[in-house]
Amino acid sequence: MGPPDLVVVSNRGPLSLSTGADGQQIATRGGGGLVSSLGPVVAGSGATWVAAAGPDTPHEVVEAEGFRVRPVPLDGERFRQYYDVVANATLWFLHHDLFDLARRPHLDRRWRRAWDAFREVNDAFAEVIAAEAGPDATVIVHDYHLPLVGRALARQRPDLRTAHFNHTPFCDPDALAVLPEDVAAELLDGLAGFGACGFHSTRWSANFEACCSAVLGRTPATFVSPAAVDGEELARVAATPECEADLAELDALVGDRHLLVRVDRIELSKNLVRGFLAFDEMLHEHAQWRERVVFGAFVYPSRETLPDYLAYRSEVEAVVARVNRTWATPGWTPIVLDSSDRFTRSVAALRRSDVLLVNPVRDGLNLVAKEGAVLNERDGTLVLSPQAGVWDELSGAALSVNPFDVAGTAEVLNRALAMDRAERAVRAKALRTASEARTPAAWLDDHRAHARPAPPEPPTG
Amino acid sequence: MGPPDLVVVSNRGPLSLSTGADGQQIATRGGGGLVSSLGPVVAGSGATWVAAAGPDTPHEVVEAEGFRVRPVPLDGERFRQYYDVVANATLWFLHHDLFDLARRPHLDRRWRRAWDAFREVNDAFAEVIAAEAGPDATVIVHDYHLPLVGRALARQRPDLRTAHFNHTPFCDPDALAVLPEDVAAELLDGLAGFGACGFHSTRWSANFEACCSAVLGRTPATFVSPAAVDGEELARVAATPECEADLAELDALVGDRHLLVRVDRIELSKNLVRGFLAFDEMLHEHAQWRERVVFGAFVYPSRETLPDYLAYRSEVEAVVARVNRTWATPGWTPIVLDSSDRFTRSVAALRRSDVLLVNPVRDGLNLVAKEGAVLNERDGTLVLSPQAGVWDELSGAALSVNPFDVAGTAEVLNRALAMDRAERAVRAKALRTASEARTPAAWLDDHRAHARPAPPEPPTG
Repeated sequence: MGPPDLVVVSNRGPLSLSTGADGQQIATRGGGGLVSSLGPVVAGSGATWVAAAGPDTPHEVVEAEGFRVRPVPLDGERFRQYYDVVANATLWFLHHDLFDLARRPHLDRRWRRAWDAFREVNDAFAEVIAAEAGPDATVIVHDYHLPLVGRALARQRPDLRTAHFNHTPFCDPDALAVLPEDVAAELLDGLAGFGACGFHSTRWSANFEACCSAVLGRTPATFVSPAAVDGEELARVAATPECEADLAELDALVGDRHLLVRVDRIELSKNLVRGFLAFDEMLHEHAQWRERVVFGAFVYPSRETLPDYLAYRSEVEAVVARVNRTWATPGWTPIVLDSSDRFTRSVAALRRSDVLLVNPVRDGLNLVAKEGAVLNERDGTLVLSPQAGVWDELSGAALSVNPFDVAGTAEVLNRALAMDRAERAVRAKALRTASEARTPAAWLDDHRAHARPAPPEPPTG
Repeated sequence: MGPPDLVVVSNRGPLSLSTGADGQQIATRGGGGLVSSLGPVVAGSGATWVAAAGPDTPHEVVEAEGFRVRPVPLDGERFRQYYDVVANATLWFLHHDLFDLARRPHLDRRWRRAWDAFREVNDAFAEVIAAEAGPDATVIVHDYHLPLVGRALARQRPDLRTAHFNHTPFCDPDALAVLPEDVAAELLDGLAGFGACGFHSTRWSANFEACCSAVLGRTPATFVSPAAVDGEELARVAATPECEADLAELDALVGDRHLLVRVDRIELSKNLVRGFLAFDEMLHEHAQWRERVVFGAFVYPSRETLPDYLAYRSEVEAVVARVNRTWATPGWTPIVLDSSDRFTRSVAALRRSDVLLVNPVRDGLNLVAKEGAVLNERDGTLVLSPQAGVWDELSGAALSVNPFDVAGTAEVLNRALAMDRAERAVRAKALRTASEARTPAAWLDDHRAHARPAPPEPPTG
């Protein structure tokens, strides 16, 4: 096989390593939101996937499950600074507006060293891609971990057609001013070194353009291409015996009550605590729902190397315990918190839900909203925050909820639970139609169509 | 005396009550930033000042110290909800971008009741003003506590010429989306009921206009009129024996070392902790300053009925203790934290400072920066955050510092301390000229000139 004409790049790759019965390492398909969206389309395409080598991912080129994975070897401490300190504790917070600005961030000299490590890791990715990609190949780099690859790669391989796709929101110029000026400029110039930059929502691309205009004095090419759900794959999972068993178990738990569902990582941007407070307030204000609704929260731990995430998990567990203490009766647990992270169980919940709550503080897209629309079997209603990128596609059919407005959310949950069959059916159909309008293959094609050679580097000084 | 043709309105009035030797209550001039800017100009003008009645302020019309104060009687619990819950814990945080959005605010039904109390207090102010103001009088209402007075007053007294002046920053439309839609609309419409809305900086007026355009579909009249320092009054205080004694004490403490100064309320937006971390980092990176600089922090407690402020004070004290433990030598305490809130001591510090640090996260104006420029006797340098409104006037002469960038702040402090005499003199002169360009009297005249009858109320629906 010659050098690939499509290279897909992301921090985490599509394969995990495990040890077989014979002691041999076996590569199998791994998890993660990006891999589950993109994996099925890339598998079997002949593309090479460049990803960070890690303790449970390959350290050499591996071909398995239809993938060809080229790992980027990285030093452990450098990886930690790139991934934990800069990507997850700085850029993620920046793009999701999660900084408690009176206190965080404080960008001290240790942080500057982490930024150096971030650049080094991005450079290491660029070198591997430059060595791997065939002449005039197309390179699609994913997400907020790898913004600096654009400029570094353009210098080495100006022949390549490149695009970056950001799965998070993008901050506005006021928020970007948190970063030191040189760091902000390096971040944006790194992205401007791609042929084009893609986002899930026009809101994020407009913010990125405004940042570039303010800091760089120019606006790179952008495109908007929201990710799609893989309806066939979801249908396949829904039909498995495991999912059917999970559904039966859920049916037994819920009985003839209504089922309110959320499916999320335990993540500050997802706004779990206010969702539970709103449910509490609904039970207080609308007594007819006591003993009549179960809130199934299928939420699983995430990024627990960061203290903020550990703290948030404790807050989530505490508020659930408090609400259950307030309202539970011998036959009824108001909130069932399931942190098991079993995909078939989440799929069963989305099939069975009467109301799906998606109320993030800010969210690049939120694929769960679309998965729920495709999977649901009861004309379930979607309660959706306009702060999610998917609002662009689903606002017409969802009920809107201000994520900060606990009292308002309680009222919208009441309205969603009380909605008559006819309105539910009309909305559910519209949700499904909007969610099925695009496919993952079309999404990837869109990236390829927008990829192009990097623009000439502007003169410095 | 007939009804006044100028009514000045603010939450806190210019008089405090104390008890004299004969047991009689005596009204004397009180403190607070707004009163100290505005008081000298309003005193003796014949204007009436309308303010909340409180435990240590008059409950009846009082004439003293050249003021005529008309109190607004308010129920204690209602006042607490208006002042603590809405004004200080919600609107202040909103306008200063201080919410830790993953957790705060949560606008539940108790908060909605506080919002009702906020409206009732604003209405109570409007009723008192309506009864007090003469025909076609001019009414200037101050600050973020009283935005709803505009619409309420316009309905009762369309003849009045009115203006509102906001001393805080104003949030942008993205941040405003934190509020429930009806609350955001009521807030903006209340302000739009004034003849004009004034701000310290074009940045805040532009944000306000963008919010109104997005939510109300129209843009009220605005004006920009940064507050001025009262140079004569400052000179008078500087010449008092108390201030001279404070200066002598400070001279003895500092000796032949450099003096870095900050003067602030202990307030989340003022960014005290990062200032101390930057000083720590400067001592680490630039060893020549060890034992050669004293950081005099004249910071005084504020709003300690709010848990956030108590917590922040603890954080401030902890970081100061840690920095002092790290660097102190037998003859040298690196940071001298003075929480005594004695104005003559602050004035002495501003006279004596070599470098003044003003690094807020966000600040409507920051009058201390101008006070320092006017008072300083050593060609002191100003290190200033562009997030302060006063940046509009002083940017040319100050050294810029990103408030989140601890490493960058350390470098700028080093540069400011090492600056040669010639550059210091040029900058200090420019700072003084810019700070003396306006007077408080001209500022008040500006408000009067912009006040006008409220525009017709737009049809609802």
